[in-house]
Amino acid sequence: VTDFVFDAAREARIGLPEAVYAEGKSVAQLAAILADATAHGRSLLLTRLDAAKRTQLDAPLDYDALSRTAYFGTPRPLAGPARVAVVSAGTSDAPVAHEAARTLRFHGEDVRIVGDVGVAGLWRLLARVDELRAMPVLIVAAGMDAALPSVVAGLVGGAIVAVPTSVGYGVAAGGRAALDALLASCAPGLAVVNIDNGYGAACAALRILNAPR
Amino acid sequence: VTDFVFDAAREARIGLPEAVYAEGKSVAQLAAILADATAHGRSLLLTRLDAAKRTQLDAPLDYDALSRTAYFGTPRPLAGPARVAVVSAGTSDAPVAHEAARTLRFHGEDVRIVGDVGVAGLWRLLARVDELRAMPVLIVAAGMDAALPSVVAGLVGGAIVAVPTSVGYGVAAGGRAALDALLASCAPGLAVVNIDNGYGAACAALRILNAPR
Amino acid sequence: VTDFVFDAAREARIGLPEAVYAEGKSVAQLAAILADATAHGRSLLLTRLDAAKRTQLDAPLDYDALSRTAYFGTPRPLAGPARVAVVSAGTSDAPVAHEAARTLRFHGEDVRIVGDVGVAGLWRLLARVDELRAMPVLIVAAGMDAALPSVVAGLVGGAIVAVPTSVGYGVAAGGRAALDALLASCAPGLAVVNIDNGYGAACAALRILNAPR
Amino acid sequence: VTDFVFDAAREARIGLPEAVYAEGKSVAQLAAILADATAHGRSLLLTRLDAAKRTQLDAPLDYDALSRTAYFGTPRPLAGPARVAVVSAGTSDAPVAHEAARTLRFHGEDVRIVGDVGVAGLWRLLARVDELRAMPVLIVAAGMDAALPSVVAGLVGGAIVAVPTSVGYGVAAGGRAALDALLASCAPGLAVVNIDNGYGAACAALRILNAPR
Amino acid sequence: VTDFVFDAAREARIGLPEAVYAEGKSVAQLAAILADATAHGRSLLLTRLDAAKRTQLDAPLDYDALSRTAYFGTPRPLAGPARVAVVSAGTSDAPVAHEAARTLRFHGEDVRIVGDVGVAGLWRLLARVDELRAMPVLIVAAGMDAALPSVVAGLVGGAIVAVPTSVGYGVAAGGRAALDALLASCAPGLAVVNIDNGYGAACAALRILNAPR
Amino acid sequence: VTDFVFDAAREARIGLPEAVYAEGKSVAQLAAILADATAHGRSLLLTRLDAAKRTQLDAPLDYDALSRTAYFGTPRPLAGPARVAVVSAGTSDAPVAHEAARTLRFHGEDVRIVGDVGVAGLWRLLARVDELRAMPVLIVAAGMDAALPSVVAGLVGGAIVAVPTSVGYGVAAGGRAALDALLASCAPGLAVVNIDNGYGAACAALRILNAPR
Amino acid sequence: VTDFVFDAAREARIGLPEAVYAEGKSVAQLAAILADATAHGRSLLLTRLDAAKRTQLDAPLDYDALSRTAYFGTPRPLAGPARVAVVSAGTSDAPVAHEAARTLRFHGEDVRIVGDVGVAGLWRLLARVDELRAMPVLIVAAGMDAALPSVVAGLVGGAIVAVPTSVGYGVAAGGRAALDALLASCAPGLAVVNIDNGYGAACAALRILNAPR
Amino acid sequence: VTDFVFDAAREARIGLPEAVYAEGKSVAQLAAILADATAHGRSLLLTRLDAAKRTQLDAPLDYDALSRTAYFGTPRPLAGPARVAVVSAGTSDAPVAHEAARTLRFHGEDVRIVGDVGVAGLWRLLARVDELRAMPVLIVAAGMDAALPSVVAGLVGGAIVAVPTSVGYGVAAGGRAALDALLASCAPGLAVVNIDNGYGAACAALRILNAPR
Repeated sequence: VTDFVFDAAREARIGLPEAVYAEGKSVAQLAAILADATAHGRSLLLTRLDAAKRTQLDAPLDYDALSRTAYFGTPRPLAGPARVAVVSAGTSDAPVAHEAARTLRFHGEDVRIVGDVGVAGLWRLLARVDELRAMPVLIVAAGMDAALPSVVAGLVGGAIVAVPTSVGYGVAAGGRAALDALLASCAPGLAVVNIDNGYGAACAALRILNAPR
Repeated sequence: VTDFVFDAAREARIGLPEAVYAEGKSVAQLAAILADATAHGRSLLLTRLDAAKRTQLDAPLDYDALSRTAYFGTPRPLAGPARVAVVSAGTSDAPVAHEAARTLRFHGEDVRIVGDVGVAGLWRLLARVDELRAMPVLIVAAGMDAALPSVVAGLVGGAIVAVPTSVGYGVAAGGRAALDALLASCAPGLAVVNIDNGYGAACAALRILNAPR
Repeated sequence: VTDFVFDAAREARIGLPEAVYAEGKSVAQLAAILADATAHGRSLLLTRLDAAKRTQLDAPLDYDALSRTAYFGTPRPLAGPARVAVVSAGTSDAPVAHEAARTLRFHGEDVRIVGDVGVAGLWRLLARVDELRAMPVLIVAAGMDAALPSVVAGLVGGAIVAVPTSVGYGVAAGGRAALDALLASCAPGLAVVNIDNGYGAACAALRILNAPR
Repeated sequence: VTDFVFDAAREARIGLPEAVYAEGKSVAQLAAILADATAHGRSLLLTRLDAAKRTQLDAPLDYDALSRTAYFGTPRPLAGPARVAVVSAGTSDAPVAHEAARTLRFHGEDVRIVGDVGVAGLWRLLARVDELRAMPVLIVAAGMDAALPSVVAGLVGGAIVAVPTSVGYGVAAGGRAALDALLASCAPGLAVVNIDNGYGAACAALRILNAPR
Repeated sequence: VTDFVFDAAREARIGLPEAVYAEGKSVAQLAAILADATAHGRSLLLTRLDAAKRTQLDAPLDYDALSRTAYFGTPRPLAGPARVAVVSAGTSDAPVAHEAARTLRFHGEDVRIVGDVGVAGLWRLLARVDELRAMPVLIVAAGMDAALPSVVAGLVGGAIVAVPTSVGYGVAAGGRAALDALLASCAPGLAVVNIDNGYGAACAALRILNAPR
Repeated sequence: VTDFVFDAAREARIGLPEAVYAEGKSVAQLAAILADATAHGRSLLLTRLDAAKRTQLDAPLDYDALSRTAYFGTPRPLAGPARVAVVSAGTSDAPVAHEAARTLRFHGEDVRIVGDVGVAGLWRLLARVDELRAMPVLIVAAGMDAALPSVVAGLVGGAIVAVPTSVGYGVAAGGRAALDALLASCAPGLAVVNIDNGYGAACAALRILNAPR
Repeated sequence: VTDFVFDAAREARIGLPEAVYAEGKSVAQLAAILADATAHGRSLLLTRLDAAKRTQLDAPLDYDALSRTAYFGTPRPLAGPARVAVVSAGTSDAPVAHEAARTLRFHGEDVRIVGDVGVAGLWRLLARVDELRAMPVLIVAAGMDAALPSVVAGLVGGAIVAVPTSVGYGVAAGGRAALDALLASCAPGLAVVNIDNGYGAACAALRILNAPR
Repeated sequence: VTDFVFDAAREARIGLPEAVYAEGKSVAQLAAILADATAHGRSLLLTRLDAAKRTQLDAPLDYDALSRTAYFGTPRPLAGPARVAVVSAGTSDAPVAHEAARTLRFHGEDVRIVGDVGVAGLWRLLARVDELRAMPVLIVAAGMDAALPSVVAGLVGGAIVAVPTSVGYGVAAGGRAALDALLASCAPGLAVVNIDNGYGAACAALRILNAPR
């Protein structure tokens, strides 16, 4: 039922094991992939797994509905205190922020979650600047005008991975306005990933933390 | 040389006299319009008048090269202290900010200019919040990610007219990213005009200040 | 179930209390927010609350299905006769127009509703010009080619907030054609908000009416 | 110097002789085409011929700089009083309006030109409605928000060919906003041609006037 | 339940009575409109009325499911033999072609329907050229690359109203590719309406046929 | 002055030697590349070399101004009669058609050039169908609505590589309308390359002709 | 129930019989087409036939759910060993790859399927280069960044038809990013078809294989 | 002549001093900024300074024409061996790659430059993989289809900042195709900056290298 060929050497090559992007895969295809993982004794991270498919999958999964992620098998143990902060502007950005957080924890990196600090109420962000300044990497998720990452980048010196979200309507719908605002940011050194790509932001953070020195 | 028919009744109808948009008009057309204004004893505001055309026009003009605006005849006297602040993010936004300021002064409204307060250096803006809170109307010009108006709108209660500018390159070029960010702003009550439209922002401010009560 | 942190100081800062944008929030999240409002004795405006969610919410709400808005608690009493006209081109624009009207009334501003005056039947608009000329602020909602606000702006001197709507198909679908027509308007001083953003138009009107003088 | 093969049978087939679109053709190519026309005794309409090229062409041409059109040889004599009105919103639309008018006159149709009747000063248009109602065909050129054709279409019953123009800046630049507004018009029966396509609008009018009955 | 104000004078003004665009209107709104028409003895054309709504409407309607149009009351009697051909490229374009045909017949104009003559099988079109050459007006509907109207316009001299359709996938989805191809056509005198706008094409044809002479 | 590293093994790998895309390269960079080719005894094809740069290059080049291509050294001898027809719609498409033809001849493939057969004068194309049916590969270049390749593909069975050109204005400007029309073509089996990419179309033809059997 | 006119001469003209694009056709229309095919003794390929419609069709079909294709009647017998490789980047591209494969097999061409060789795990592709180098034609399907066809084109000399797929989210959604990447490819001679157009890619391959020599 | 207010505290806040974006600034404005820097004893990096402006500036600058960058005053001394590789696909990407390199060196980070390793000649990249695997950060610049960063990301584990460039024509022009391909990459953990933003990529690299641990 599937052509899936697990890229088993990927972790050795680039430090990141292959994950399973569940959107567009059938339940039968996913079941075959999990069976293959069982046979080879591999743990797996699944992303974009909606609740209906999870119910149909007869497999032991640590499933999180908000982020639509699942852990199959055992995640890597947490290496120590959080080195990544996941910052988001509003409650609607939570699914993306939590996809990033769950991805990081699966790979053994704890995270600090800092939610609902959008710039319309700037005091909420300013109250937490010291905390954010201490973090090596910040993932900042924001939709609509995506002003938050620009403001954060003017306040802290850590590496920043900005994730535009598809939250909003009218010109904001789909996230292109947020994406373009982030790419055009007046604050220096923002690095950007695809719209709603919490998983990719986490991978970028892992590359930064685990890069050769 | 021109089909121009001055809409003399416009000021009586809507409180704003017709202005002359010089871009795309020939020197001969502009000269004919000024002759017509002289004949009828009208003062005129010209916008988007580039320096080359101004030189070719044999007419007494109060010309400002930065904003490419010219006053022909006498502007209305200033009515009192500034009721409009013109706020801009960076020096590159100055032409747009000054087009707004020159338009307002031509119509008798003084302005307070607050330049170079982009959010990458947030302290510059925070230092002037009290001053901005006292103004009935704020015109805020910003290009690139246009995060400034959203932050301002979270800090003050006055009417805000946001002007996206075409400053920037890549996804910012042309100003569409700035425009969309402003329309998608998470801060409530931002009103937006066309890209680089300092003149239109000033007209919106004049409508607000002169509306019937 | 929610990261929601009410920005309680917003009303003091900018004159507008925080509202709850219900789209994309679960019933559980909304219930938690209402419980929090009850605990702190706050009234709340909810926008984009669809009928299905409203039915699931076990809470006393003054709900309007057309505009998908709800009042939780007591709105501010109306301050006096209407200072804002909400003008719309066709019946399909009514949801947006009524979102604006409901937002204004929640904040104590009565409104005059002027519907179905699109420019294809110009006499309908011309018959009401005197009435519109007396209003300090006009919110004008129009989809498709959005010609109405331009025509209105050539006839009256009050402040105008134009709202493009997503009504239409083909090039009109989604409202981008209407939005661009409004931004490009030949009539001076139109201020524009996001597509279908009746709430934002109302907030802009409130800023205008309540600005410091 | 040219692959140009004159479609001599076109006029017999569809009633419109082939014209020469000069943009992108070299002076040598144009000279060869004119020599071919001389040899076959054909008159020719040239469009988009800029003044520099016209100067370099050593040929007897009736050249109009505003519309960038040229007549080579003798146009058809005018058939009678104008059956087409060419209406435009502002002086900047004149080049497009005159390209339409020159094309019509080359083919023997006189035109009535009605300029500078944009909707920001609606009285200018209303004063001429009776005149416009008598015309079989109206070509209406407008840029920016292109509201004029929609308003005209609500007032008169003749055939209407709307031409969006590229006049304007920001979202109006290039004419796409005007085009989309025309296609999305709320007024029934507007037919639209490409941006700045005065020639095409005239051809559409000729098809209408000369169609078999 | 509705703000609908029937523009009763429209037919006298422009020769076309107001029609009812049913998309986005509730069954209650439509019922109210039909009741109003009954009270005033008016016939009505309804467009974009889907089958589900039609079933819920308790009213005598001549309903056509393919075109989603309905006649309420008596259409105008047919004036004579068909003066309009409705040409389409493929079976998927039939709903748009039939919306045009039904609109014309409601207004008393018979039509000749010429279906499935797309240019991939050119012989099907060439076999019918003489028939098409005799028609005063041709409405040509085509999706995808919309090559058909260009080819037709090179073969016949009548007035041509081209309707792009939203048929297709990938770059064709939504009809923008077809629309742009029509506007960019190398054949002179094509007039274009909005995507899927069979109703508008019919109105344009009616303007052409009924224009003052 | 250049990082250029000639991919000498490319011809062995894929049958096509590396060519030099001159746009964006300085005269000094180009001179260095030619010196390198001289040293290694390689012939080179240069594309997009404008006349000004060619004049500044002190090197023996077989230069063609229309296509902006140059041969440095000896092209491969022609292998036999033309197996590729290069068909174009109008004279403005000639630069693209000739870039394809010059690329093919440099690689030893003769071409048949069939110009000015746009569909507005269909007889010109139909007169040459038999000739086109005999060709293994047809490169068809067309701008604006790009209807020609669709019509050709309905008439002949050979491989067809369609090249959209950037000829035109308004919605046609830049060639996106032509590109999308080609991709959306109703005729089966059109293969498409980038806008104005005559070089790429020729390479596709070479792959087809030289593919392993 | 259908205007469908089978283009029976198409196969003689261009070597490809007409296929039936089932999307947007009703079950009744499809049944009528199959009845017509039965009457004339024709086999038919149906594309984009979803499973629900297939169930409703009371006809003997060889249906493949993954590719949504059906064979009605007998396909042409396979002519010999595969001359086309269908290469795809990931499992999500399988429906498009199999639409191409099924189309080829219906026309008597066997195919070699090479799945899941995306460039993120380059070794999977490099392991199969020799096999790919022996094929006359390669169809390469890829979504998201569509890097695979560029890499393949740098490794093999056969004809390459690249198919962008609509797999992905954010900027990848809909397949425009993949399409543009393929058209802009730095590898020479890639020919491209519409997004998700496996059928068209197969037709292009058939033209290549069956072209006159 | 300038509103420029140097954000002197920026370096203390975020580790990056403010740089001067010279595009859109007049020579007089730039001279004033340099005078201010002299007065405060600050070194400055200028970006996007074209050669004409540099000639008019009467100031001691270390100017690099390829990258259009200038050092005013003394750069920070290099801290040690290169920790950043700047990788580019073709010679046309060199200006962007060198803007990144010059920015890094100004801030005391040496760089390794790896040019002309585009994927059309994959062996050039594979030969240098070991070298690239040793680097903590890789900046990868690529235009057109931008396939290079995806391939690199599948081969190495370091942090990757991808820079799309505006190199190319047709759909590649302006760099949007490259940008979207990078954001849609199938390789995990690519972080992206604006088109042609070599400066921003360098700042992202500096944030990564200097982040708190």
